[in-house]
Amino acid sequence: MQTTTVKAFGTEAAEAPLKTLNIERRAVMPSDVEIEILYCGICHSDLHAARNEWMNTVYPIVPGHEIVGRVTQVGDAVAKFKPGDLAAVGCLVDSCRECEYCREGLEQFCEPGATLTFNSPDKFIDGQQTYGGYSQSVVVDERFVLSVPESLDPAAAAPLLCAGITTYSPLRHWNVGPGTKVGVVGLGGLGHMAIKLAKAMGAEVTVFTTSPSKVEDAKRLGADDVVLSRDEEQMAAHANTLNFILDAVSAPHDINAYLGLLRADGTLVLVGAPLEPLPVVSFNLILGRKSFAGSPIGGLPETQEMLDFCAEHNVVPDIELIGVDDVNDAYERLLKGDVRYRFVIDMKTLN
Amino acid sequence: MQTTTVKAFGTEAAEAPLKTLNIERRAVMPSDVEIEILYCGICHSDLHAARNEWMNTVYPIVPGHEIVGRVTQVGDAVAKFKPGDLAAVGCLVDSCRECEYCREGLEQFCEPGATLTFNSPDKFIDGQQTYGGYSQSVVVDERFVLSVPESLDPAAAAPLLCAGITTYSPLRHWNVGPGTKVGVVGLGGLGHMAIKLAKAMGAEVTVFTTSPSKVEDAKRLGADDVVLSRDEEQMAAHANTLNFILDAVSAPHDINAYLGLLRADGTLVLVGAPLEPLPVVSFNLILGRKSFAGSPIGGLPETQEMLDFCAEHNVVPDIELIGVDDVNDAYERLLKGDVRYRFVIDMKTLN
Repeated sequence: MQTTTVKAFGTEAAEAPLKTLNIERRAVMPSDVEIEILYCGICHSDLHAARNEWMNTVYPIVPGHEIVGRVTQVGDAVAKFKPGDLAAVGCLVDSCRECEYCREGLEQFCEPGATLTFNSPDKFIDGQQTYGGYSQSVVVDERFVLSVPESLDPAAAAPLLCAGITTYSPLRHWNVGPGTKVGVVGLGGLGHMAIKLAKAMGAEVTVFTTSPSKVEDAKRLGADDVVLSRDEEQMAAHANTLNFILDAVSAPHDINAYLGLLRADGTLVLVGAPLEPLPVVSFNLILGRKSFAGSPIGGLPETQEMLDFCAEHNVVPDIELIGVDDVNDAYERLLKGDVRYRFVIDMKTLN
Repeated sequence: MQTTTVKAFGTEAAEAPLKTLNIERRAVMPSDVEIEILYCGICHSDLHAARNEWMNTVYPIVPGHEIVGRVTQVGDAVAKFKPGDLAAVGCLVDSCRECEYCREGLEQFCEPGATLTFNSPDKFIDGQQTYGGYSQSVVVDERFVLSVPESLDPAAAAPLLCAGITTYSPLRHWNVGPGTKVGVVGLGGLGHMAIKLAKAMGAEVTVFTTSPSKVEDAKRLGADDVVLSRDEEQMAAHANTLNFILDAVSAPHDINAYLGLLRADGTLVLVGAPLEPLPVVSFNLILGRKSFAGSPIGGLPETQEMLDFCAEHNVVPDIELIGVDDVNDAYERLLKGDVRYRFVIDMKTLN
């Protein structure tokens, strides 16, 4: 396989800060799209992987799966893209394409396992892992490339590729719309997108936060009501009121307190992933036929649908645009929750 | 309120064995049906309540919510029943009838709270609790009385009113049918009904049990496959194979081991209620968009649908018919799991 050397920003060890690296990108094959990366969002997964917190990182690693850029070259068989198009890549760059799930456009559930945008074995370059979006360019099969409507701000659109689809997918899957009373737990990168998307879908949104300092911001983002989740009286006043809860908290927290806020047949969906097991009281599920569920990203067709929905409803995340030299500092700020609400790297600062 | 004294079998204290008691039944009001009780099933809830294990029992208590009998008298406004009809009463004898759930026939979710067949405040006899089916007769509003198809064996039909509807309702709610791969965890009163009902709905059924002695019986009941749940190799061989799991185990057990058996978008529904909280690993829900849910009984329309389905498909539980004098012994055997699969009391032994 012919390759091209490009600049990237990554790390060779869990303890080392990220720095400029050279990586190889494959030559454009018939169904491939080459993208010059303009912007890449910073997701908490980037930090987990860079620091080997999930114990599966192969170094060197180049994080980044919220990628927006311009198409620079396409293979002979590419039909959907041409040079100059605004395009995006999310968490997946390949899958088996043949299993039941891939055939349905649910590549996130690919049975042999999808190829993640970074830190997955590269199918095309022997012995190399996939490298993510903290880089100058990327080459991806067109099936895994999204079209970005020109009306979206390309920098602000970047986090839609993970934070956006991760919240859009469960809201759609569980039929949130007009008349649905939605709770959003945790106001961070995912939570703030959940508010905007659920409102755009026509739902009534109540935000639950531990931070009094976030109450006003939740309202600015569109919340109809905000509850301080440590206030037992406020929580009790909302018992049995919600149809659907999107829980975006990654720290350990009491799921039973939130199951009690659901009406009969309600569903609480985790999109944050606390590492410790969460104790669930069985009667909290049985008495109201309630569900405690989880949801990852979405498949490619749904990711495109989400981008089109966001363009139509003018929904984008609130971002803080930074240069590559700020990435290590941004990771530290992420750990303190000091970002409203998503960092996006201006990739031309890599040159 | 005029009342009539009838014989019943119950207890006046948590530590005392059940014995013959006299209780009052209300006079038949315009929309009431009076039923001479022929058979009453024994549910584990009867034992929990008789012994105050849920800490809410008001004594004296008369358990029993799996009631089948003959109509002996009806009020002037009753349209659905006449004397001589085979009729049944399940877990509910009244509800508010006005809330969103009652209007939809989901009386099990009644917002002010439904009136349970035993140990609920009686709306009509001041200062008295409702008394259940271990008695000669009962008077119930026709809305809460079911019609029993004459083709069903009335003794075997009794447990359908709790064990039957508790398993039928989630199988229907989660659309189990031809092509669905169903797991049933725990082979007791509920589990054995789940096998029969899921098979009658056209599903493929795998039973999970800790008891090698139950393997043959599971197959006799219709299971396509039986897995010993303590055998890690057998469990691993079934990973990602099931669409739906009905979990009827009341003892603490590892939910995560069963979540791993579900395919993407699969649901595990608890109908047994372990008292200890069950720890759930969030990634087990998130990665395959899986749900961990619970389900109680069904509403009145669905309970009637279930009885008609059982008549049509010739599905009844396996029962052991006993006399009232055997009830205290049956409770001890229930604690040891020594029943295949449901005790039913022949109520004429009370006379």
